[in-house]
Formats: sequence, C-alpha cells, structure tokens
Amino acid sequence: MTEEQVKALETEFRQYVKKIQDYNQALSLLAWDSRTGAPKKGVKQRSEVIGTISAEVFHLSTSEQMAKYLKELREENVYAQLSEITQKTVDECHKNYERNVKIPKEEYKEYVMLQSESESLWEEAKDKADFELFRPNLEKLVEFKKKFIGYWGYEKHPYNTLLDDYEPGVFVETIDRVFGELRDQLIPLVKGVTESKHQPKTDFLFEKFPKENQKELSLDILKEIGYDFDAGRLDETVHPFAIGLNPNDVRVTTKYNEDDFRVALFGTIHECGHALYEQNISLDLLGTPLCTGTSMGIHESQSLFWEKFVGKNYGFWERNYDVLKKHSTGQFDDVSLEDFYFAVNQAKRSLIRIESDELTYCLHIIIRYELEKALMEDKLEVKDLPQAWNEKMEEYLGVKPSHDGEGVLQDVHWSFGAFGYFPSYALGYIYSAQLKEAIVKELPNFDELVKAGDLAPIREWLTTNIHQHGAMKKPAEIIKDITGGGIDSKPLVKYLDEKYRRLYKF
Amino acid sequence: MTEEQVKALETEFRQYVKKIQDYNQALSLLAWDSRTGAPKKGVKQRSEVIGTISAEVFHLSTSEQMAKYLKELREENVYAQLSEITQKTVDECHKNYERNVKIPKEEYKEYVMLQSESESLWEEAKDKADFELFRPNLEKLVEFKKKFIGYWGYEKHPYNTLLDDYEPGVFVETIDRVFGELRDQLIPLVKGVTESKHQPKTDFLFEKFPKENQKELSLDILKEIGYDFDAGRLDETVHPFAIGLNPNDVRVTTKYNEDDFRVALFGTIHECGHALYEQNISLDLLGTPLCTGTSMGIHESQSLFWEKFVGKNYGFWERNYDVLKKHSTGQFDDVSLEDFYFAVNQAKRSLIRIESDELTYCLHIIIRYELEKALMEDKLEVKDLPQAWNEKMEEYLGVKPSHDGEGVLQDVHWSFGAFGYFPSYALGYIYSAQLKEAIVKELPNFDELVKAGDLAPIREWLTTNIHQHGAMKKPAEIIKDITGGGIDSKPLVKYLDEKYRRLYKF
Repeated sequence: MTEEQVKALETEFRQYVKKIQDYNQALSLLAWDSRTGAPKKGVKQRSEVIGTISAEVFHLSTSEQMAKYLKELREENVYAQLSEITQKTVDECHKNYERNVKIPKEEYKEYVMLQSESESLWEEAKDKADFELFRPNLEKLVEFKKKFIGYWGYEKHPYNTLLDDYEPGVFVETIDRVFGELRDQLIPLVKGVTESKHQPKTDFLFEKFPKENQKELSLDILKEIGYDFDAGRLDETVHPFAIGLNPNDVRVTTKYNEDDFRVALFGTIHECGHALYEQNISLDLLGTPLCTGTSMGIHESQSLFWEKFVGKNYGFWERNYDVLKKHSTGQFDDVSLEDFYFAVNQAKRSLIRIESDELTYCLHIIIRYELEKALMEDKLEVKDLPQAWNEKMEEYLGVKPSHDGEGVLQDVHWSFGAFGYFPSYALGYIYSAQLKEAIVKELPNFDELVKAGDLAPIREWLTTNIHQHGAMKKPAEIIKDITGGGIDSKPLVKYLDEKYRRLYKF
Repeated sequence: MTEEQVKALETEFRQYVKKIQDYNQALSLLAWDSRTGAPKKGVKQRSEVIGTISAEVFHLSTSEQMAKYLKELREENVYAQLSEITQKTVDECHKNYERNVKIPKEEYKEYVMLQSESESLWEEAKDKADFELFRPNLEKLVEFKKKFIGYWGYEKHPYNTLLDDYEPGVFVETIDRVFGELRDQLIPLVKGVTESKHQPKTDFLFEKFPKENQKELSLDILKEIGYDFDAGRLDETVHPFAIGLNPNDVRVTTKYNEDDFRVALFGTIHECGHALYEQNISLDLLGTPLCTGTSMGIHESQSLFWEKFVGKNYGFWERNYDVLKKHSTGQFDDVSLEDFYFAVNQAKRSLIRIESDELTYCLHIIIRYELEKALMEDKLEVKDLPQAWNEKMEEYLGVKPSHDGEGVLQDVHWSFGAFGYFPSYALGYIYSAQLKEAIVKELPNFDELVKAGDLAPIREWLTTNIHQHGAMKKPAEIIKDITGGGIDSKPLVKYLDEKYRRLYKF
C-alpha cells in the first residue's frame, strides 16, 4: 500500500468507527433517560429501541467490513504508519472483534436470554432469601462463562480472561498478592475499631434533611469540586451513576434520602469523581473507543479519590461545614466539627457491601473475588456458595448473615454474568491511595489546598496524569508512570491504619 | 406469490420498517433532550449523533432493499392480501421514497447546507431588521423549492405539492375558498373589537407569578385535562413543544414567564392537546410510520381544541379559578371571575403572530399563505416580500410594522425551507371549531362537562373519532367522517363572532 492509500484507509476506518461511537452515544442517552424519569409505560418500546441500536453496534463491530479493516490495518508495515490513536483504536476494535466472533451466535443468544431472565429471578430470590430459586440459573451462568473462557483462551489462569474485560493487564497473580496483603492488614484493624471504647455519636446524621435542601447542597458541592455544568447536569435516580456520552456531556445522578443526607452528599461527590475523569478526556479521542475511562478500577479510583481523600478530608469540612449547616434545618447546630467529622467517618462491620465504609469495604470485595476465582477454577460449586460466603464473612468481618438475602445473594452482578468485575472495586481503592501518595509528593500542601477550596491544582494533576489519556494508557501503565512501580496495597493500608487508629484511639 | 410467501414478505417488510421507527424514536429522544437541558458544550457532538442516525434512516428509506419491498408489495394481487395497516404503511413508505429519490443527491446536499446556513443568517437578519441580509438565501431557498416541485410534479397548482407534505389531501382550491371566507369575516370583527369602548382590565395578568407555583399549576391542569403522566413528563424549555416517541412516551414542555402566567398555563394546555392525540393512538400502529398524528393541521386542531374550547371555556374557569388562585400569590384576590375571563380572552391587533390571539391569529397565517402561494406561482418576487407583507398587514389587521424584524422576517420557517407549512396553523383553527360543533351534537352538555371537570367523555370522543387512527386516515377523511362534509370556516367564524361580540359588546 502506498502512503496515500494507508492514509485513505485510515480515514475510512476512523469514520466507520465514529459511526459506532455515535450509536453508542445514543445508547448512553437512552440509558440515562431510562434511569432519570422516562415514562413508566414506555419501558418496552425503549428496550426495543435499545435492542435495535445495540444490534447495529454489534453488527458493525463484527461485520466482514470490520474484519477487512482489521486485517489490512494490522499488517505490520501498515500499522506502523498509523497515528498512535488509530493504532490503539485498531487494537481495541480487534480485541472486541475477537471476543464477539469467537462465541457461536446461537450460544450467545441463549446467554443473553439467560441474562435477562436471571436478573428478575435474582431479585425474587434475594427478596425471598431463597438461594435455591436462583441456583439453577447461576449454575448455567457460570457454565457459560467457563465455556466462553474456553473459546477466548486464557493465559495462566482462566480468571485472567474475565479480568481482562474490566481491568486489562491486571492478572490473578497480582490481585492475589495485593488482596492477600490487604486482607491480612484489614482484619486486625476492623477488630480494633470494633472493640474500641471510643465510638462516634451519630444520631444527628439521621435527622430529617429536606430533599430540596439536599439538592441545593449537592449543586454547591459539585461546583466546589469543579464539575463543569456546561458539560453536564445533575438529576435524581434510584441507583446513582455517572454517564459520559462524550467529554462535553457527562451527567451525574444522585439519590436523596431525607433520613440520611450522607447518601446524596457523598454519593454526589463519588459520581462527580467519575464525571471529572470523563469530562477531562482529550477531545483528540472523540469518535474512538478510547474516549472513555481506561478501566473500571481506574474509574473507581477517581470516584473514590474525590469521595475519600477530598470529601472525607478534615480540611474539606473545615471549609464546607458551614455550607452544610446553611442548607440543613439546624441538625448540626450543636455538633462540633470534630464530632461531625468522626461521625461521617464512622467504621463498623456490616453485612451489606453497599452500606459498608472505607475501612471494611474491601473485605466484602475480597470475599467475592475469592469465591469467583474458586468457581472458575472448579474448586467451588455453585451449590456451596452460601456456606462459603457465610464462613468468609465470619472469618474476615466477624459477622454472619442470618439469611442469603443479606448474604451471597445481596449483589446483582452475577445475575447478568459479570464475573471478574468485583475486583475493580477494591483495585479502585488501592489505586486511589497510591495516587494520593503520588499527588502529595508533587503537591505537599494538598491538605491546605483542600481546606482553601483551591482544588484546581489537584484536578490538573489528575487530568495530566490520568484523565486526558482516556483508554490510550492501560491501568498498569498509568500506575507505573505515576508511582514508578506496580499495584501496591501499602498506601491504602497506611492511610486506613493511621486514620482509624487516630479516630478510634487504639 | 403464494399466500405464505406474501405473509413472509409482509413480516419481513414490517420488521424493516420497525427498524426505521426505532431509529426515529432515538432521534425524538435526542431532540427532546437537546431542548430540555442537555449540556451546552455537547451541541456539536449531539448534532453529529443526530446526523449519523438521520443518515441511516434516510438510507433505509431509500435503499435498494426498500425499492424492492415497495415494488413487490405494490403489485396489485400482493397488495390486496396485505393487512390494512401494512397497505397504508406501504403507501406512506412509497410516498416518502418517491420524495427522497427524485431529488439528485448532490442537489439535496446543497439544499441541506443552505438550510443550516440560512437559519442562523435569518436570526441575524431578524435581529438587525435587515431583509437584504437574508434575501439572497431566501431567493435560493425558493428556487430550490420550485425545482423540487418540478422533480416531484404537481396537480393543478405547484403549491399543492408543498401542501402535501403537511396537509395531505388538502388543496389550494379549498384553502383559497375557506381562507377567503375567513379573512372577509374576520376583518370587520377585528375592527369591531378594536373600536369597542368596552375593553378588559388586564394589569393583574402581569403581576409576578413565581415559577415554582406556575409549575405546580401546570401539573394540576395537566391532571385535570387527563394527560397520562405514566406515559409522559413535563419539562421546561425555551420554545414549548410536545413530542411523541410512541404512544407510551409522549412528553410535553412549557416555558415559565414570571410576568405573564398565561404563557405557561395556556401553552401547557396547548401542548397537552398535542400530547393527548399521540398518547391515544392505537398501539396496533406501533413500529409503523402511521403511529403519529395524520397531519400538522389535525394535530394543531387538537392542541387548539383544548386550549380554546376547553381552556378558554367559561365553565373551565368556574371550576378552576380557585385552583389558579391557590397557586398564585394573591394577584387575583380582587378580580371577579368575569373580569378574569374577559382578560384572558382579550383580543387585540398585534404585529407578531405568536403574540396574537384567537381572533387575529388566522389573519397572520392567511397573509403568509397568500405570499407563499404568490412566490410559487411567480406572481411575487422575493425582493418584494417586505412591501407586500406590510401592505397586507395594514389591509387585514390595520397595523404596520416599523421594520422587517417585526414584519416579514418574524418567523423562522422559511429559513429551513418550510413553505406550505403555515396554512396548517389556520386549518387547525378551522378544524377545531368544526370538531367542537360535531362534539356538541353528541355531547350537548359539553359546557357542563367542562364545568364539572368530567372531561373523559370529551377525550373518548376525540380518541374514537381522531386519535386512535393515527395516520391511517387522512385529514379530509377525518373531517368528512365527523361532519359529513368538507373543510368549512363557518363554525370558526360563528364561534368567534358570537364570543367577541358578546365580550366586547358591539
């Protein structure tokens, strides 16, 4: 191929890929709409529209045309002439193509039907605390995943292939090491906190905080943090999320609980962390599959960074406690800043992952990871999951579910086959602490910046080192470039250890 | 073709058409989103997404596949075996196909570019009151339309082909007659109102009515009228509209002017009229191009019916004046129901169409129609439009624009080539009065029903006679089935004559 022919092919391919991305943006808007107030009766029609566009995206991603582009563009001498963005777009499309075409169509269809059936079945099983109701479907889902791993192939460990969907370039070997260290350090810390005589007063957290006031508070805090309202909006939803159509349109949602303002407040900060990531991706990546966060774990590191290292920073509350008081109806008037700070940082063992705190959260994830891995390597059978879950809960957290609804059935993820997803949550925590250490090296006045509300340098650091790159850099590459090393649980342990020994005086 | 082959072909075609409709639903959601709070910075990306999906819709509607379907399905013996819905779907797709393929691609592209350039140019020209700035583009737009009419062909009058886009089956001959009658009757009526000594007090209309209160009022009134909130939602926008994705998802929007509550109140009722139409289309028509209002005029008749014959009915205010007072902050406390009623029915000559009232509105439309028709039959040149506009304004309404910004440039429609659209507005008025007469024949207690808030029988009448049919029946067919006759301006004239002579005592 001549240089000009390569150029022409590159342009044509990029236009083809942009079309897929345009459809994906429409799908994102449909998803956002479905979850923020779309009319109830429209559910079925909306699903069909989503189905039609998704099918088109699947078709374009696995078409003969795509195969032809990939074949031509991946030839060594052609590939070398492409821009770096196109090269990585080719890589991404190729990975996606391989994933999709290797599963026989009929089997995939069966799997999709199983997924949609399982989600409502899971819900029923959870409500009835009846694992047996869900078991047959869960067994089939696990079998499908194992078969898919067979089609896709794997290196070293079958679970690595699942990880690759959410945390590309991170392997079981690494996770085993960092999760092991983390677990061993967290268990005694949780014990220390639980047994401490010094516990926070928390009654004021649960006094009525009107929804409208919480909304105003959320808007103020989003502004404080630097969310760009010209490239986003805040809405209400049942399960909060952030969604990026493109860097110029990244929406956040929150949920208002009038009996616990923390849900909206820290939830909003969390989703804003996700949104800042997407709002600051380089516009050069528009129209490519790289114009998104690079992995679930790195995404979660951004939401957690803002939620924990900014939103739960003492200095943040030195600055913003009055803002909170202004929007509340008096519940904090007699509460000192110290008592407030201790209360919102309360740590306690809980059965439910999504109700847990920063100290205990990772243990929930580690349990889920250990069970998933055991399932995939045939060391555990689905029928034995409830018992295995309960035993680990008791061992790691010292609490035991009274039924499976608050035990192994509590999370939806498995019902749609999302095995390999959970580790990202804990990796996000680990990454966020590593980032925090790295930032403090460059911005030693981090705490003062937060206290002064001067968050621009922090946002800029994150944009330079993480956000702008979108999916151009893989997670391990980002961590290496920032820390000079690999994934490491020590910064997180150090942070939690210092913080909770200080707060709980043990 | 065997019966089974026809059946199979019909199914395949309907699936093909459903795909187009699914894309159209996504486009409707994108349009709704763009106008109800989508982030500013996302405009360009959103346009590109809309462009991509629109291009796909155009492609599917004009593809060789579509041509093949139409050819096979329109064969007499095949067509006869199709369901009525499929037959009319074929007719609709064929009409659309013919429209689209007859224009040379390059020319159409040029036209689309001219449209998009002209809209911003029009805005500038209007703001500067500088017709000359817009003239060259308007001339090109008129030339394009004439050329298109040439490609499409026409019967009797070139303008008939333009009408067919908005009011299929209604022709210049009819419009000339009914508009002529209407004009001749309205001119003296407007004169009578203007010269009457008996004029309403209106100062209380313009007192501050807080936005939040207006929103609550709008919600109450929508419920009163029977808008289905499970199949819709109310949002705020700059230029209010109703949009139906499908009958289960029909959204309305409104605009709150704190210095004139009428904008939101009557605007909401108006959009609700559109929405009731779309919400009550038969679900049998889902996934076909028939699942929509049958014409602009019939659509407008629904919005106007609710706005004028219900929302400006005296009984409606006997029932709802207290609701209005409850939401307001006291501005109506000293205003009698009679004074209020007279005030919201005030009629006065105005230069601006969208600020005009039910008495004068049609004259604005008739002027626009007469000018459009003259342009298309080469009896008027673009350069002479401002003068022609001003002369007609003076003749029909007795007012004269001081500049073209409040004259011929006031409306956006021509800037995107929408010639043939304006008559629908006045036809909607005429239809709505015809409907009202027909309803009263079957529901002689119409006024009592409105006064009692018992609007279900009225909604049911409209659903039975109009809504459910979607685009299965053409406008003339609907009017014929309801009235036994044709389009007739007499009911509207009678209504206006009685009402305004009574109100203004002349």
